[in-house]
Amino acid sequence: MTYVYAFDHKYGQKKPPMQQKDLLGGKGANLAEMTSVLGLPVPPGFTISTDACRDYMKGGWPDGLTQEIDKQLKKLEKTMGKRVGDPADPLLVSVRSGAKFSMPGMMDTVLNLGLNDESVDGLAKQTSDERFAYDSYRRFIAMYGRIVQGIEGTEFDALLDAAKELAGTTSDAGIPIELLRYLVDSYKQIVRRETGKPFPQDPIVQLRGAIEAVFASWNGPRAIAYRNRERISHDLGTAVNVQTMVFGNRDENSGTGVGFTRDPATGEAGAYGDFLVNAQGEDVVAGIRNTEPLSALADKFPKIYKELTSIFAALEKHYRDMCDTEFTIEQGKLWMLQTRVGKRTGAAALKMAVDMVTQKGKKWTISRPEAIQRVTADHLDQVLHPQFESGAQTKVIAKGLGASPGAAVGKAYFTADDALDAADRGEQVVLVRTETSPEDVHGMIVAEGILTSRGGLVSHAAVVARGWGKPAVVGAEALRIGPKSFTVGGVTVNEGDVISIDGATGEVVLGAVALSAAKPPAEFDVILGWADDVRKGKLKVRANADTGPDAEAALNFGAEGIGLCRTEHMFLGDDRLPVVRRMILAETDDEETAALEELRKVQKADFFEILKAMKGLPVTVRLLDPPLHEFLPSTEELAIKRAKEGSLSAEEEKLFEAAEQWHEFNPMLGTRGVRLGVVKPGLYAMQVRALMEAAADIASDKTIKQRPVIEIMIPLTVTGPELALARSWVEEAVATATKGVKNPIEVLIGTMVETPRGAIRADDLAEHAEFFSFGTNDLTQMTFGFSRDDVEGRMMTAYLEQGLLKRNPFETLDQSGVGALVAEAVEKGRKANPGIKLGVCGEHGGDPESIDFFYRVGLDYVSCSPFRIPIARLSAAQAVLGASSTGDTK
Amino acid sequence: MTYVYAFDHKYGQKKPPMQQKDLLGGKGANLAEMTSVLGLPVPPGFTISTDACRDYMKGGWPDGLTQEIDKQLKKLEKTMGKRVGDPADPLLVSVRSGAKFSMPGMMDTVLNLGLNDESVDGLAKQTSDERFAYDSYRRFIAMYGRIVQGIEGTEFDALLDAAKELAGTTSDAGIPIELLRYLVDSYKQIVRRETGKPFPQDPIVQLRGAIEAVFASWNGPRAIAYRNRERISHDLGTAVNVQTMVFGNRDENSGTGVGFTRDPATGEAGAYGDFLVNAQGEDVVAGIRNTEPLSALADKFPKIYKELTSIFAALEKHYRDMCDTEFTIEQGKLWMLQTRVGKRTGAAALKMAVDMVTQKGKKWTISRPEAIQRVTADHLDQVLHPQFESGAQTKVIAKGLGASPGAAVGKAYFTADDALDAADRGEQVVLVRTETSPEDVHGMIVAEGILTSRGGLVSHAAVVARGWGKPAVVGAEALRIGPKSFTVGGVTVNEGDVISIDGATGEVVLGAVALSAAKPPAEFDVILGWADDVRKGKLKVRANADTGPDAEAALNFGAEGIGLCRTEHMFLGDDRLPVVRRMILAETDDEETAALEELRKVQKADFFEILKAMKGLPVTVRLLDPPLHEFLPSTEELAIKRAKEGSLSAEEEKLFEAAEQWHEFNPMLGTRGVRLGVVKPGLYAMQVRALMEAAADIASDKTIKQRPVIEIMIPLTVTGPELALARSWVEEAVATATKGVKNPIEVLIGTMVETPRGAIRADDLAEHAEFFSFGTNDLTQMTFGFSRDDVEGRMMTAYLEQGLLKRNPFETLDQSGVGALVAEAVEKGRKANPGIKLGVCGEHGGDPESIDFFYRVGLDYVSCSPFRIPIARLSAAQAVLGASSTGDTK
Repeated sequence: MTYVYAFDHKYGQKKPPMQQKDLLGGKGANLAEMTSVLGLPVPPGFTISTDACRDYMKGGWPDGLTQEIDKQLKKLEKTMGKRVGDPADPLLVSVRSGAKFSMPGMMDTVLNLGLNDESVDGLAKQTSDERFAYDSYRRFIAMYGRIVQGIEGTEFDALLDAAKELAGTTSDAGIPIELLRYLVDSYKQIVRRETGKPFPQDPIVQLRGAIEAVFASWNGPRAIAYRNRERISHDLGTAVNVQTMVFGNRDENSGTGVGFTRDPATGEAGAYGDFLVNAQGEDVVAGIRNTEPLSALADKFPKIYKELTSIFAALEKHYRDMCDTEFTIEQGKLWMLQTRVGKRTGAAALKMAVDMVTQKGKKWTISRPEAIQRVTADHLDQVLHPQFESGAQTKVIAKGLGASPGAAVGKAYFTADDALDAADRGEQVVLVRTETSPEDVHGMIVAEGILTSRGGLVSHAAVVARGWGKPAVVGAEALRIGPKSFTVGGVTVNEGDVISIDGATGEVVLGAVALSAAKPPAEFDVILGWADDVRKGKLKVRANADTGPDAEAALNFGAEGIGLCRTEHMFLGDDRLPVVRRMILAETDDEETAALEELRKVQKADFFEILKAMKGLPVTVRLLDPPLHEFLPSTEELAIKRAKEGSLSAEEEKLFEAAEQWHEFNPMLGTRGVRLGVVKPGLYAMQVRALMEAAADIASDKTIKQRPVIEIMIPLTVTGPELALARSWVEEAVATATKGVKNPIEVLIGTMVETPRGAIRADDLAEHAEFFSFGTNDLTQMTFGFSRDDVEGRMMTAYLEQGLLKRNPFETLDQSGVGALVAEAVEKGRKANPGIKLGVCGEHGGDPESIDFFYRVGLDYVSCSPFRIPIARLSAAQAVLGASSTGDTK
Repeated sequence: MTYVYAFDHKYGQKKPPMQQKDLLGGKGANLAEMTSVLGLPVPPGFTISTDACRDYMKGGWPDGLTQEIDKQLKKLEKTMGKRVGDPADPLLVSVRSGAKFSMPGMMDTVLNLGLNDESVDGLAKQTSDERFAYDSYRRFIAMYGRIVQGIEGTEFDALLDAAKELAGTTSDAGIPIELLRYLVDSYKQIVRRETGKPFPQDPIVQLRGAIEAVFASWNGPRAIAYRNRERISHDLGTAVNVQTMVFGNRDENSGTGVGFTRDPATGEAGAYGDFLVNAQGEDVVAGIRNTEPLSALADKFPKIYKELTSIFAALEKHYRDMCDTEFTIEQGKLWMLQTRVGKRTGAAALKMAVDMVTQKGKKWTISRPEAIQRVTADHLDQVLHPQFESGAQTKVIAKGLGASPGAAVGKAYFTADDALDAADRGEQVVLVRTETSPEDVHGMIVAEGILTSRGGLVSHAAVVARGWGKPAVVGAEALRIGPKSFTVGGVTVNEGDVISIDGATGEVVLGAVALSAAKPPAEFDVILGWADDVRKGKLKVRANADTGPDAEAALNFGAEGIGLCRTEHMFLGDDRLPVVRRMILAETDDEETAALEELRKVQKADFFEILKAMKGLPVTVRLLDPPLHEFLPSTEELAIKRAKEGSLSAEEEKLFEAAEQWHEFNPMLGTRGVRLGVVKPGLYAMQVRALMEAAADIASDKTIKQRPVIEIMIPLTVTGPELALARSWVEEAVATATKGVKNPIEVLIGTMVETPRGAIRADDLAEHAEFFSFGTNDLTQMTFGFSRDDVEGRMMTAYLEQGLLKRNPFETLDQSGVGALVAEAVEKGRKANPGIKLGVCGEHGGDPESIDFFYRVGLDYVSCSPFRIPIARLSAAQAVLGASSTGDTK
């Protein structure tokens, strides 16, 4: 078994290194690629493979590994003309972990390995720089002690600070050589005290210790937590890279830097980066000295600059992408220490992707499908919403669920009315509530962002905020919210205090954080246009939109119809709620009918607005879904009022009784959806009549060109007869409302599939449905038995961190459970009714990975909130491309 | 096409009539069987088949039907030597509906058809009895008017009463002939007024009217509602029987009666019934005159009695069962008007079934399997619980859900404390509550029965009552319950007023109803013994039992183990609840551990009692399942208290905050089951340690012979890793608790399968489970999206009545939806882990039809409440017999 691979190993016969990241890790593969394929100046070294790590984890230090390392070290010594541990001229190496995926939770780097009490003097002589040698040794002991031996870094730092104080200096460089010698001695004593043993002097022992530390760090708690979070398999193991040290801190003819082949913030072409003269890599990263822009290199080291830019060109051509590099100049010689395809902002990702397709005069370009696949949902989110500026200093006081992306800054207000007043005074507001309800909507509208301490990602606050594209953090359970303030972790935020929230990460920050503006670059439309070309005819994208303005926004974002128009809000508002309550309280059929008639009139206007906005694109209207008690006051509040005031008004008593009567133990599984229709048979007929009368008005309005296309959706059906009955109401109401309309209006009647039984018996439902829309939110709740509002705050984190769930099934569809039901329903539905139209309107309709699944099982469209439409368009194209490239077809 | 079949049609070439009930209806088939197969004296006639009815419903009066009826009438006239409508000597017939299944919602009988203004005089002459003739005509017009023409019966009754008043008599027989003539005239005028036409004089027109009325009654609203309730297909249609009239009211040598071949109440052998001299059938049923026992016939008509008893013997031999008959004696000649296999009480069913196997000297017996299949679950329920005495007059004031079978009588009390006080005074009590909670248990224990206005069949009241075998009616939503009274439909029941409840039908009755005692006859154990012989090795029966006394009861009923021991109650009670609350409120790990330690000690004693009672039979213990807020006070109550009193104690404030923190929107889908274990990791370990320490004590106790057999069950798992984690806690706790125990104690670790995802991913779960127990209650709730507590009261009735559900899926397993998930899980579970033990512990484990399904999909056992055990034993045997007889095997 081969465990160790030199960077210049002859990979020719096998796969090139970059295709062996499983074995070599990302860092090792890139180093080998630069060395053996591109012939770039890389300090020689070798990689101990992930095989070795896996075998180590199973059975301890692998047989033969010591011999292989020894052989590679010998080779290295021969190449460099130096020997490890040579007291006169020691070969020094760095040891770095390098897993297949970059992992911040693991051991990072040990530099200068090979120094000991003797070789430090050899180094001093060889470099004629005693200070350099002792500073290197000092750094090595501290790094080794901290990273390999697990000693607290503060112990070393305290001594370093003391030395600086003694020397009257603030910089490491100001410490005189005498004090450096003392530092080395005292560092070694720390090691002896903490480990019970002297600092290891044998470089082979040092090396083995460092390698084992890397192996062990794979199973450190932070690494495990990180892998759980990022869904990386625990079985991969890490590689270890051992590389000859080069020194950018030898003299003024040396230096070190970080370089990008293009600007990672803007995507502009041309080398970009920072460097420092006479410094080591950690100095650049630590930010202790002010760095110079890479362009300054052209003046100071013109030859090096030319070499570097030509290396950048070679890297870009080879990797066909923007690369991120680390380099060191040692006494006038350029060394490449590391490269990888670079991370970038959303705007840069878009610009680069388009540029790389269209760039002229370059020797390479990428295809449009490649460009599409280089942009991620996060990239689009970044350009669609304001963000905390990168590098902004923040004091995070709490964390909730990131419920609606984007960042907001404003003064905290605790009631909708106070928020409105403040907004009227011209203030920017963040509305803070325990939870929100429809009665808070006027305050939510004027707020920059919304923060709640209760509820999950489908709570009222979350759903409404996403619909508006407004930042929101929900379920920040640590907040103790009072009438005019909240406290969290000892911090109190009073009304009017400024806070900032990040609706993507869920962070709540004290004070104002600088925000970057939301400005989609010109390339945004180009990429989405290309994505649409790929996607067309394969997977449509619709929007969840409930009002005329929502519908207009959806259309602007490129929606091809409305996949879910919830009609709940049509029952709210000052002009409706009292009527709705009259309907609920009605004691006679006549009273009920009168209330329904009144509602029909106002709702007709709502539907007219939506249908008009959608200009002949299909509009799926879901009939009323929530349980009726949502339209009644809370029994608890009324009971408290009664207790306080001794009595309630007659009206309140009636409402109280109705609220008690309609109260539900588990509203999610209660009298809602089509069940309401069965219990209150006039309700759905009223809604359908309002809708179809609006449609008839549109159809006969000569100023409106496109005829409306209507899809009426029955929620929560579980049996065929239930759907057949509901369908009969709908058909009758359609006929009543469109009597006398000249050309028939196109109407499809279908159902949500959102209960496990609905999915299992999809064949029964399909007999009475022209379309299905999968309500994957509810389907997930019922399949797992997870009430989203209850489990997301309380237990989801624990479940994800402990790996009991691979991911939050409300964000990304649980393919093997909930997805199996969707697939079963698709198959049964199509078999029973081959022409049936299939879509999804749960939140998963806007999630890239879920969209990929929906494409593979053969849905016709996905529907998501307007602000997710661009992401869905992109993801749908990626799904189409992914499926065709892996040969996995519908 | 043949539509009409004479009773003496030659069925020999085809199937015997009783196998053609689809075509002839039940009544017609029995008449034909008696006539053509048994050769008994049946008044001749013919049956118009259900084919005719179905064709009538599709396209009106079928072609050729008139001709066929005509032909049959001619034949009848020839046989009888009389002609229909003959003014001198008319042939009279009865017309009766007769569907495949007996249906009270349909048209029943029209007698004396064929009389008119002329033939009435012919009849008078022929019988030399003018009074008889006019009385028959009077009855015919009223019956025809009411049943065929839809005229209110009260119109005729009023005139009859007037005639009796005029005659100064109270009996119909006292009306003189003059007044009878007036009655006939006035009846005809009613018909003319109500229908706009004279009373039809043409017997052929009369007959057609009656036949069409029977056909139409098939689709009458009451018939449809009945079929929906009884799950009878609407497509069957009804047959119509036309039969020659014979008269038991001709003279003192005539009579009519109802006879059973054995006593339907006790099962005693020998003829049993009632008869009346000189009377028509309706007089017997109407109860106007006092009937005589059938034995009196032996004195009055010895020859007839002998003939009748030999007919009874022939019927029993032919039908191989007890038969129920109607007969008429016309001037000394016996006629059999009807027969069918007779209905019987539970006690009779048991006695007859055993007698028919063991009876000596009879020419026929039945087999043990037949005997087993003749006893139903209802029969067993009747002998296990007291019942309202049959025929008792009751004033039903409300109807709820029959939650726990049996009837109870007692004074209404409205709090547990008041109920206890009353019981201490020696009163019999029915506890009436809006809903019950663990705090009401002391009142429930002393009550004869429990009545609630809220909650479904899994509400606290329902579950607890079933566990104790105590009658309960729940979810009687019409009740408005105040502090010391309730009102319903204008009736007010005050504290101390006597009410009666029937926990099988859900009826609530004002006043005391006489109860029959619950006394299983000796045959009970015989039948169950035979059932066990059939069932053994194929399907085991276990009990759901939570305490030592429960376990003992279960063992007495024949349980072969405990399939579900819920541990919730071990957290309640005055000595536990405060400790549980300390555990929930704990702010440090130490506080939590201390509370758990305290609980462990008390729970160990609970487990000891159960394990000891079960004498080495397996005991499945479910770790804590309900959400923690169930152990905290209600936030609403505390909030009201705070509002009333201005403040709460510090302790209460702490509880309030905890209750708010643990509050859940949908507790059914919240932080419960294994999720609790993840959130409070010490909890399950504590329970397992308590259990295993108790087991270890039993194992080392030399006075106890059998070693305990333990099955530890993790509730509500949805993923493999979740179960693996929980299993690791259990294994560790088992090891800790049994360290030092000499022979290892048998412990299996398994899981509930009660979420759709658990079923779909049963293969993942099976890798970490030695058994599955299907929790079909929760599985049904989640598969349908039905919160049982919410939908059973509010919408289930509407759904059943409208046929949207074929049956209540909480009573009988929904085989095609929930059952499909169970079957999938069985298959996947066995594939992943062939040795896995499979059972069910939802309430369906005690439902006969569901048990049949569970046997067919291959479960190893069912588990149900102790009082359902006999039913489950019987049903399991019936499932085994049914499966083998239809060739449908596991």
